Amino acid sequence: MISVGIVGGTGYTGVELLRLLLRHPQAQVRVLTSRTEAGKRVADMFPSLRGHTDLEFSDLDLDALKQCDVVFFATPHGVAMQHAEELIASDVKVIDLAADFRLQNLSEFEKWYGMQHSCPDVLVDSVYGLTELNREKIRTAQVIGNPGCYPTTVQLGLAPLLKASEKLINPQSIIIDAKSGVSGAGRKASLGMIYSENADNFKAYGVAGHRHHPEIVEALENISGEKGQFNHLIFVPHLVPMIRGMLSTIYVDLTEQAQNIDLQALYERFYENERFVDVMPANSSPETRSVRGANELRIALYQPQPNKLILLVAQDNLVKGAAGQAIQNMNLMFNFDEAAGLEGIGLLP
Amino acid sequence: MISVGIVGGTGYTGVELLRLLLRHPQAQVRVLTSRTEAGKRVADMFPSLRGHTDLEFSDLDLDALKQCDVVFFATPHGVAMQHAEELIASDVKVIDLAADFRLQNLSEFEKWYGMQHSCPDVLVDSVYGLTELNREKIRTAQVIGNPGCYPTTVQLGLAPLLKASEKLINPQSIIIDAKSGVSGAGRKASLGMIYSENADNFKAYGVAGHRHHPEIVEALENISGEKGQFNHLIFVPHLVPMIRGMLSTIYVDLTEQAQNIDLQALYERFYENERFVDVMPANSSPETRSVRGANELRIALYQPQPNKLILLVAQDNLVKGAAGQAIQNMNLMFNFDEAAGLEGIGLLP
Amino acid sequence: MISVGIVGGTGYTGVELLRLLLRHPQAQVRVLTSRTEAGKRVADMFPSLRGHTDLEFSDLDLDALKQCDVVFFATPHGVAMQHAEELIASDVKVIDLAADFRLQNLSEFEKWYGMQHSCPDVLVDSVYGLTELNREKIRTAQVIGNPGCYPTTVQLGLAPLLKASEKLINPQSIIIDAKSGVSGAGRKASLGMIYSENADNFKAYGVAGHRHHPEIVEALENISGEKGQFNHLIFVPHLVPMIRGMLSTIYVDLTEQAQNIDLQALYERFYENERFVDVMPANSSPETRSVRGANELRIALYQPQPNKLILLVAQDNLVKGAAGQAIQNMNLMFNFDEAAGLEGIGLLP
Amino acid sequence: MISVGIVGGTGYTGVELLRLLLRHPQAQVRVLTSRTEAGKRVADMFPSLRGHTDLEFSDLDLDALKQCDVVFFATPHGVAMQHAEELIASDVKVIDLAADFRLQNLSEFEKWYGMQHSCPDVLVDSVYGLTELNREKIRTAQVIGNPGCYPTTVQLGLAPLLKASEKLINPQSIIIDAKSGVSGAGRKASLGMIYSENADNFKAYGVAGHRHHPEIVEALENISGEKGQFNHLIFVPHLVPMIRGMLSTIYVDLTEQAQNIDLQALYERFYENERFVDVMPANSSPETRSVRGANELRIALYQPQPNKLILLVAQDNLVKGAAGQAIQNMNLMFNFDEAAGLEGIGLLP
Repeated sequence: MISVGIVGGTGYTGVELLRLLLRHPQAQVRVLTSRTEAGKRVADMFPSLRGHTDLEFSDLDLDALKQCDVVFFATPHGVAMQHAEELIASDVKVIDLAADFRLQNLSEFEKWYGMQHSCPDVLVDSVYGLTELNREKIRTAQVIGNPGCYPTTVQLGLAPLLKASEKLINPQSIIIDAKSGVSGAGRKASLGMIYSENADNFKAYGVAGHRHHPEIVEALENISGEKGQFNHLIFVPHLVPMIRGMLSTIYVDLTEQAQNIDLQALYERFYENERFVDVMPANSSPETRSVRGANELRIALYQPQPNKLILLVAQDNLVKGAAGQAIQNMNLMFNFDEAAGLEGIGLLP
Repeated sequence: MISVGIVGGTGYTGVELLRLLLRHPQAQVRVLTSRTEAGKRVADMFPSLRGHTDLEFSDLDLDALKQCDVVFFATPHGVAMQHAEELIASDVKVIDLAADFRLQNLSEFEKWYGMQHSCPDVLVDSVYGLTELNREKIRTAQVIGNPGCYPTTVQLGLAPLLKASEKLINPQSIIIDAKSGVSGAGRKASLGMIYSENADNFKAYGVAGHRHHPEIVEALENISGEKGQFNHLIFVPHLVPMIRGMLSTIYVDLTEQAQNIDLQALYERFYENERFVDVMPANSSPETRSVRGANELRIALYQPQPNKLILLVAQDNLVKGAAGQAIQNMNLMFNFDEAAGLEGIGLLP
Repeated sequence: MISVGIVGGTGYTGVELLRLLLRHPQAQVRVLTSRTEAGKRVADMFPSLRGHTDLEFSDLDLDALKQCDVVFFATPHGVAMQHAEELIASDVKVIDLAADFRLQNLSEFEKWYGMQHSCPDVLVDSVYGLTELNREKIRTAQVIGNPGCYPTTVQLGLAPLLKASEKLINPQSIIIDAKSGVSGAGRKASLGMIYSENADNFKAYGVAGHRHHPEIVEALENISGEKGQFNHLIFVPHLVPMIRGMLSTIYVDLTEQAQNIDLQALYERFYENERFVDVMPANSSPETRSVRGANELRIALYQPQPNKLILLVAQDNLVKGAAGQAIQNMNLMFNFDEAAGLEGIGLLP
Repeated sequence: MISVGIVGGTGYTGVELLRLLLRHPQAQVRVLTSRTEAGKRVADMFPSLRGHTDLEFSDLDLDALKQCDVVFFATPHGVAMQHAEELIASDVKVIDLAADFRLQNLSEFEKWYGMQHSCPDVLVDSVYGLTELNREKIRTAQVIGNPGCYPTTVQLGLAPLLKASEKLINPQSIIIDAKSGVSGAGRKASLGMIYSENADNFKAYGVAGHRHHPEIVEALENISGEKGQFNHLIFVPHLVPMIRGMLSTIYVDLTEQAQNIDLQALYERFYENERFVDVMPANSSPETRSVRGANELRIALYQPQPNKLILLVAQDNLVKGAAGQAIQNMNLMFNFDEAAGLEGIGLLP
C-alpha cells in the first residue's frame, strides 16, 4: 500500500483522482491540500464522497507531502514546478496533471503559459505520461507530465500511422476537429462557464490558438521522430453541452503506400494488447457516453477515399484524458497491475 | 412611440427586455446602462441582438434617463430605490424588476434583503405589478414593483380560490413545491451556477428560507384581504437542469364549501378574458416548454380527493415571470394594447 | 461464485445489472436473454461493455436459466410471474425488477397493471425487497419483488417515523412531490421519450394516477402495521431533463408527540448502521448527482414549523431504485457481504 | 393575405412553420393535414400554440389544398412529388421542405432516397430554394425544393469563395465537420432518438454516407459553375445534445490568388445587403444559441496559415435550415417583404 498526496483537490481532476484512488487496492490517499479549503472535509465539498472518506483538506505542507510515495498535482500550471525539485529530493514521485512537464520546449511553454519554467533541469528528466506510447520510460520516471486531454486523443489516434515503418500520411495535412464536454474547462466561477451560457448551445473556441496545440505538435514530433513536420497542423476545439466526454475527429491525407495497407488491421494490431484502447470494428462510431467514467479510449476509422482517412477518437476527458491516465502511470511507476483501480465500467445511460 | 431606458442591461432580464422591446411597435429603447460595460455595444455581449440594434451601454446618467418616458431597472435589489424619487420627480415612470417595490412591509424587506429601504414614501405609492390582479392600479401607477417569478405562479394559481365569495381553501394548508430553470439565478460568475454543477442534476435549494417567501405571503394576504392567514405556508424551490421555465406544484386543502363547486369551471371563468393566462382542460399537464419565450402562464387543476386540490402552474421565468410581465405593465401604464410586443409564440421544440 | 441469469437484458435496468454484476466478486452472469436480440453480443448494443464481456443475448431458455443460482427479471411486468414457479421448483432464486411481486393485493395489481396475476401462491411467499426494512426475510426468500424506484425513496424516507414507538405523523397528511430523470421511463421507442420532447423542459405526469401509488400505500401500511391509514396520500411525479436521478420531496404533518423529539437524531440513529442510507446533516440538500451510479440514498430533514416536516430523499433511480438494490438483495440471499459489487463511488461531476 | 396549406404538420418543421406563419402579416394558414391526426386540434398536440390558433388537422384533401395560394410539404420525402403536378395545375405554388426537389440528378435521388422520382418534369422546372443565392429564380418559381439544413450552412459558407472572379480555393480540399442538434432528426418514435440515448453524449453519425452529401455536391457545382470538382468533398455530421442549432466547421485550402485577398472583406461585401446572413468580425465564434429561433445564419472566418481557411457557420436548423428559409422563399414568390414574419430575435439564454 503506497501513500498518496494530492495537491489541489478542489477541482474536477482532484475529485476524479479521489473517486478512483479511494477504491484503489494498493494506494491510500493520505494528504489532500487546498489553499482555500484547509480544514474542510472533502466530502462536504463533494457529497458523492460522503461515507467513502474522512479526508480533510490541509494547507500545502511539504513535510507532509514528503512522507508520501507519490504526489499528484491537480492544480493550475505553475504549481508543480515550484515543488517538484524538493519532492524528488525526498524520493517522492511526482505526477503533474497540469502543463508544467508537458512541453520540453521552454520558449513554447513561456509563450503559451505566460511564465518562465522554474526547474528546467527537472523538466529535462521528466517523462511525458502518454502511457501506451511511453510505458517503459514511465516505469522508472521520477516526474511525470500527464498529457492534456485533447493531446491524448490525437496521439493515440495517430500513433499507429506515425509509428509505421513506412510513411503513411502527409503530416502537414492533419486537421483535428475536437469537441469537449464542459468539465474540461475546470471547476471555477466564470461567467462563460455558467449553465445558461452553455446548455442547448454549441460553439468553437480557442480557434486562434489553444494551449494544447504546441503540446500536440511536440508529441507528434516525438512519436514520429520527425521535427518540423507538423507546423501546419490545424486544431479547432469546440464546446459540447455535456459534462464529460471528448471526441476528436481527425482528417489526414494518406500517402500512396498507405493505400495498399489495411489500416483497420494495422490499428487492431497496434493496440491488440492494450487494455484501455479499443479499436472498434469498421463502420463504428464511438460515443462519448460509452466511456463515461471509464479509463478507456475508443477509435474508429473511415476511409472515404483511397487517399483520405478519418479517425474518430472518444474518451472521458476526466479519466483517460486526466485522472485515469495519471493513475495508470502511477501503477506503472510502482509496478502494480496497470489496470489497478481502473477497471470500472462506463456509466450508460 | 415612447422612449425607454433600461438600467442594468447585462443580465438575463435585461437581454430579455431588449429582445421584446426591440420588436415593440410603440416603444423604443434609447438608454441602456451598465456600470461595468459602458461603451460596449450590447450586440457584442449578446450576439442574438446582432443586426437588431446598435445600442451601446452607457454609464448610469440620470439626465439621460430623465428624458425617457419609462425606465426599467433590471438590476440587483437596492438600485431602483436610489433613483426612483428623482425619476418620478421628472415624471418618468419606473418599473423595477428587482425587489425594491415588492414588499410593503419594511421590516420584512430589511430582514430578507439586508438593507434599509431608502424611499419608503415612494414605496407606499408604488403598485405591485401582478398585471391580471392589479390592472386598474397599474394603469395609473408611477412606480411598479414587478413581481418575483415564483410569486407570479403562486398568485395566479391561487387567485381564483382566494377571490371567491366563499372561503374555498384552508390558507394554512398551502404547500408550494416549485421548480425553476437555472436562468432564474441570473447571469453571474458563481461556482454554484456553472454547467458541470447543474447539468444532469436536481436538488432543492433555499429550503430554510427564500426571499420570495415573504413576497408570496404578503401578496396572498392582499389578494384575499386577510392578514395573518398564510403564516404556515410552505415554499420549497428546486433547481431544474434547464435554462428557462418554471413549474409550481401547489397543494391546498379545500373547505366543505369548495367541494360543491366545479373548480375547473371557476378557474375558466376567472381567466376567460385574460390573454396570457391559460386554464388548461381537465387532466392536462402544463409543460414549461409550452411557454418558452412566451408571455404566458398555464394552469391545470387536479382534485385527487374531495378536499384536496393540486395546481400545476407553468411559465417562462424570464417572460411572464419577469421581462414580459414588466412590458405588460408598461403597456397598461401608457394605454397601449396590453399585448403589444408580447404576442410571440413559444419556441417548441 | 454463483451463476446469474438475466431475463430481458436490453433495457436500462438490464445494462445496469450487467455494469454492476460484471465487477461482482462472487457472481458471474452466465445467461442473458432477449426476445428480440438473440445472437447479438451485448457489447454491440451497449458499447460501454466492450472489453468487459463476451456475453451474447440468447432466447429465453428455461433449461439454461434453471442452471443458474439466481435469475433477475429486467422485463416489463407480466414476465417473471410466468416463469417463477418453474424456476423455484428447480431451486433457482428469482428477483423481479418489475411489478409482479410488489403488490400483495391482487385486485390492485389487476387494476393498475391490467392483467390477472398468474401465480398468487408464489406471490404470497415472495418477499418485498426493500433491503433495509426487510433484511431478515430477504435472506431466506426464494422470490423477491424488487421495489419500484419512487416507493424506495418514500419508504426509506418515512420509515424512521412510521417505525417509532409513538405516533409521530398524521398518515393522511402525506404529500409526495417526486421528480425523476428520464431513464426511469425505460429504453423504448416512444415519441414522448425523445430528446427534443424532454430536454429543456419540466412537467408533472401521471397526476391522475401512477402505478407506484398503490405500491407506496401497501408498503407504508406494512411498515407502520396500520391498514387504511394512507388512503389520502398524495403522490405527484414529475419528469426532470436529466438521465438518472430521483428526488422525492415529502411533506408530512407531525403529531404533538413528534414535536418533542429531535427528529434529526431519530433518523441518524435509525440508519446509523446502514451503509447505503445517508442521513445528511441539518440544512443539507441532497443532490441527485451525489449518488449518480452509486447504490446510495441520501435523506435530509427540514422542520419549517413545529408541526411540519419536509423530507428530501435522493437516489439514482437505476441503482438504489432498481439494479443496485436488486444486487443488494442477492447478496443477502447468498450470504455475501451486503455491499459486494456495490461499493463504487458516484460519478461527480 | 394569402391562403396557406401545410401538408404534414405533426413534425418539427410543421410546428415551426405554424409558429412563424401564425404571426405572418400577409399569410393565413387555412389547411393543415396529417394522415394520422385528422380531427385533432393542432394546439392539443403542440401546447405552445394554445390560444394562437383553432386549426385542426384534416385528411389530405387535394381540393382543399387547391384553394390555397401556396402549399408547404413538411412531410418525409416522396409525398410532395405525388401531388405537386396537380397543385401547380391549379396554380398553387409548392414549397417542399423534404428532398423531392433538391436534387436534379435523378440517379442520385434514387440512390440516396430509395425511390424513383415520380415527376421529373416538375423537378426540372423547380427551383432550389437557397434564397440568397437563387433569389431571382425563386421569385417566379412554381415549385421550390427547400434546401437541407446542412447544405444551407455549406453553401452560404462557401458561396463568396466560389462566386469570386478568381479561383480562390481548391474544391477537392473541402472538409465539412458538421454538428447538429437532435431536432434535425425529426419528431418520430425511434430508440436512437430518446432522451437517455442522446443527453450528455456526443458522436458522429452517417460517416459512411449522408443524404445531404449529394445535395451539397450538386449545389456547390451549381454555385461555382464547375461540374466534377467536388467529388472529394468530405462531410462528417455529428449529433450534439441540444434541441436546435447547427454549426458547420469547414476547412478549405486556399489558392495562391486567395492569399493576396482580404477574405474577411470579401465576405462582408458579399453579404452586405443580406438581412439574414451575418459575417461576424474577425476572431468571432458564432454560437448556435445566438440564432435560436431566428432566421439567421452567422459566419466567422479564420486563416490560421496563408493557404488555409476555416469557416464557422451557425444557424437554427429548424429556421434558416428549414421553416424560416421556406417562408423567406414564400415571401419572394408573393412579392412580400422578404423579412415578413421572420423578424423575431433569437432566444438567448
